Amino acid sequence: MDIKDQHLNLAQWYDVIETALQDTDAEPILNLRDDGAGVYDAIFLGGGAGGRFGAAYLRAMGGRPLIVDAWPFLGGTCPHQACVPHHLFSDVAAELDLWRWFSGQLFFPDWDPGRASILEIIRLFLRGRSSAHAFMNWQTKEQLDVEYVLNARARLVDAATVEVAGRRFEARNLVLGMGARSRHPDIPGMELRGVFDFATLVEELDYEPSRCVVIGGGKTSLEYGSFFQATGCQTVIVSRSPLMRTPSLHHVDEDLRRYVVDGMRKRGVEILEGAEPVAILGSGKVERVVVRLAGGETAEIETDFVFIGTGETPNSAMARDVLGVRVGPQGEVLVDKTMRTNVPNVFAIGDLIGAPMEMFKARRCGVTAAKNIMGEAAEFDFSEYPDFLHTTYEVTWVGLSEQEARERFADVIIIQMPPYVEDLDTEHLPLPCADRTMLYAFAKPELSGFQKLVIDGESRRVVGAHHVGYGAKDAFQYLDYLIHRPEGLTIDELGNMNELFLNPEHFIQLSRLRAGRSELVNL
Amino acid sequence: MDIKDQHLNLAQWYDVIETALQDTDAEPILNLRDDGAGVYDAIFLGGGAGGRFGAAYLRAMGGRPLIVDAWPFLGGTCPHQACVPHHLFSDVAAELDLWRWFSGQLFFPDWDPGRASILEIIRLFLRGRSSAHAFMNWQTKEQLDVEYVLNARARLVDAATVEVAGRRFEARNLVLGMGARSRHPDIPGMELRGVFDFATLVEELDYEPSRCVVIGGGKTSLEYGSFFQATGCQTVIVSRSPLMRTPSLHHVDEDLRRYVVDGMRKRGVEILEGAEPVAILGSGKVERVVVRLAGGETAEIETDFVFIGTGETPNSAMARDVLGVRVGPQGEVLVDKTMRTNVPNVFAIGDLIGAPMEMFKARRCGVTAAKNIMGEAAEFDFSEYPDFLHTTYEVTWVGLSEQEARERFADVIIIQMPPYVEDLDTEHLPLPCADRTMLYAFAKPELSGFQKLVIDGESRRVVGAHHVGYGAKDAFQYLDYLIHRPEGLTIDELGNMNELFLNPEHFIQLSRLRAGRSELVNL
Repeated sequence: MDIKDQHLNLAQWYDVIETALQDTDAEPILNLRDDGAGVYDAIFLGGGAGGRFGAAYLRAMGGRPLIVDAWPFLGGTCPHQACVPHHLFSDVAAELDLWRWFSGQLFFPDWDPGRASILEIIRLFLRGRSSAHAFMNWQTKEQLDVEYVLNARARLVDAATVEVAGRRFEARNLVLGMGARSRHPDIPGMELRGVFDFATLVEELDYEPSRCVVIGGGKTSLEYGSFFQATGCQTVIVSRSPLMRTPSLHHVDEDLRRYVVDGMRKRGVEILEGAEPVAILGSGKVERVVVRLAGGETAEIETDFVFIGTGETPNSAMARDVLGVRVGPQGEVLVDKTMRTNVPNVFAIGDLIGAPMEMFKARRCGVTAAKNIMGEAAEFDFSEYPDFLHTTYEVTWVGLSEQEARERFADVIIIQMPPYVEDLDTEHLPLPCADRTMLYAFAKPELSGFQKLVIDGESRRVVGAHHVGYGAKDAFQYLDYLIHRPEGLTIDELGNMNELFLNPEHFIQLSRLRAGRSELVNL
Repeated sequence: MDIKDQHLNLAQWYDVIETALQDTDAEPILNLRDDGAGVYDAIFLGGGAGGRFGAAYLRAMGGRPLIVDAWPFLGGTCPHQACVPHHLFSDVAAELDLWRWFSGQLFFPDWDPGRASILEIIRLFLRGRSSAHAFMNWQTKEQLDVEYVLNARARLVDAATVEVAGRRFEARNLVLGMGARSRHPDIPGMELRGVFDFATLVEELDYEPSRCVVIGGGKTSLEYGSFFQATGCQTVIVSRSPLMRTPSLHHVDEDLRRYVVDGMRKRGVEILEGAEPVAILGSGKVERVVVRLAGGETAEIETDFVFIGTGETPNSAMARDVLGVRVGPQGEVLVDKTMRTNVPNVFAIGDLIGAPMEMFKARRCGVTAAKNIMGEAAEFDFSEYPDFLHTTYEVTWVGLSEQEARERFADVIIIQMPPYVEDLDTEHLPLPCADRTMLYAFAKPELSGFQKLVIDGESRRVVGAHHVGYGAKDAFQYLDYLIHRPEGLTIDELGNMNELFLNPEHFIQLSRLRAGRSELVNL
């Protein structure tokens, strides 16, 4: 269908997308100027975060981009299967966590695990997701003026030609943004009904799980495992590494890690570290997971639900085979800081180029490619960045862990809440507290969070910040900018800012209590 | 009791404070070096936010401060009667709001107004508040090394002498931080049982209100009114000005205001703007409030509960009468930017010097006085600052409203979510969304928040930011710093930051979608 001259509103777009998702024969969606004639400045293969932002930026600079995507919507995996449902699940987990701790107290009814249905939450997501898709399609056409072909699988012909929806499009540059897919452990039983990853979970779950085994120790495992447990589905996490010590997570502070993992255990999650899955057993449907434990012995865990959170593999095969782009050991397309591959005029962006598979990286990769294509030299270094995950909490960090700082600086100053003081009886301390932790602070103080600021005493600069609680994620974007700018951020500047009390992280006021000292000390 | 050589932990401090609060004859708490002999660099009269931070900073700089306070704890009104209970109430309001909208859906039981008790939430607060007090007393002594006399009312003798706990203390400087108290409208019936302000609410409420009349249209009224309504207590707000248009609130954007006030109405709050209370009637206990409505006619509102939120008056009488410090029309002590009053060596800080009566201002006033006393010239200009309030939402803003920006700049660019576009059907748009709004986004999209960025198109600088939702408060502290630094914050710098998706305010990525254009346009 050619929608170039139509101006669909969100409700109309919703219908177009839902129809296409349900009907595999639905025709491609074409939004093309001059019917796609002429040569584009760039074709973005994949309209996920990187492709959409890259194309929008290139268009904003005056160029002519084309996005092609097999799905009938722009935005990619994130709003369809990944970060958006995960945020819904984590938000639900935080609500259910409150209910479970306060069961029968205050205004909370008795906890009723029968009410919290994983399946029902997924259905809520499925009913709503195309509304976000509708907005992306609308915005990209009407506000950002970007051409696209959706709901049609593209074929790379060469570095200047893409075939899609039965025709060929020519471009001076290609930007590859085909993303990644779940990587599954190579063990027997992966094909059984009841084995899911983040994508198949939302697409295929059709029963209410009663027990869960999560495989993996990184972000996805913690996030989904915490959600399942919060609904009352008894969850076991099987991980080779200690949780949050997987290679994909950098700068994880040990005190933060302990607070997070202890918090999961307090909520009933069973955690098997140093353990490896050996096989998934069952006749047709999952019944047991066989695990080799840290001590070498084997255990069988009964379950009707297995969730795989062992990372993702870039979708690089077609680009490698057709164009000859070089790929690394994980299948990631290799690029330089301008996002150029080894093939002239071919760029790659987002999850396709490997870790970190995060939104900011995908989008900024796209922008970097766009700038270079339009003749503005640009590099993107994503070796340092702020990071976060959810359990039933929001966990956020940026810069160095305390351990890393101690390796680098002679005089490391720690400002944290609760403070580390022997015999202080901090389990009754209602601090930290802020929005969404007030009930914990007043009734279950030990659950109200943890925060730590790491400072180089000599330069007085903040070198790391770590937070468990809620409501600090947004701030860490700016803390990242401030501590990584050339002049950094000193405790003096931080202590001189205007806090909005009760602020989720108490860094401004805690810094102020120490900033008067010429020789800094811990707090 | 002399606790100088004791090192009480939090549980022990809790007992000391609770005992003193319950026994009006409890003796003063003395934490004095050399038994208080010698001359202090400064005596801080009042150990609230300003006095505690000022004294701590002066001590950190090597000076010798003394804090005196009539209460048996440091921290002042905030943790005892004001911002801390308010945050607990607002957090509860956000939870109850979710329950009411989702009554009987998903995992939420049917809404049961009988379960949500204002009295019970206040009791939860009262049981816990001395734990925070305990921490302040502990930290100020053990970590910050500040001397104090608590639980004893001080008398000013002259600008160098304070009498408290039966003895006299000498200082080279006085820092006055005696705070403020609720200002009540001058109408008949204020003495009736059932009339409360924020302080008496927590101290004296002993029944469960069934209907409420809130008087006032500023922060306190919106916050407490939203909480009462959320518990199922039908609330009417009576305000002379339109809500959020009181003189104490600056830079309130009209679109933000409309979203907030409409949101309160959607939740059942009845709002009478342009209305004035004439009298509170009842025999012994409140029964009705007589109100002159905008049109001039009079109405009687039946109620068993009246909440006064009409602002605060500084406690300046003693300082004016004894020391001759000059005060302004609202009773506020007049100071210059160094916090000096007209009386040599007498400083004044915090709520005592008038609006804004906010935490950041009190604390930074204290620090400014401390620096000047210790010989470091310092000024504090709090004419510009970020601000926030709660309804069932967290509402945050900084810099100019759109209207103010249009008066000042020729080319004002607006980036907002939902976008303002006719016939877009945005009531089904699940954006903005982020932590704590995900359920709204997927089931009641029109409740998921509002956000707006105001940009001067010519300089490309962000000049204002406005947010309704959750989780952005912490970030606005840093946005305030960034937009008010000399070089400001351009849309280009903002669009080049690393967002943590789903970020509560979507400013980074929305900016990025426009930053490629040399001529900016709205989004």
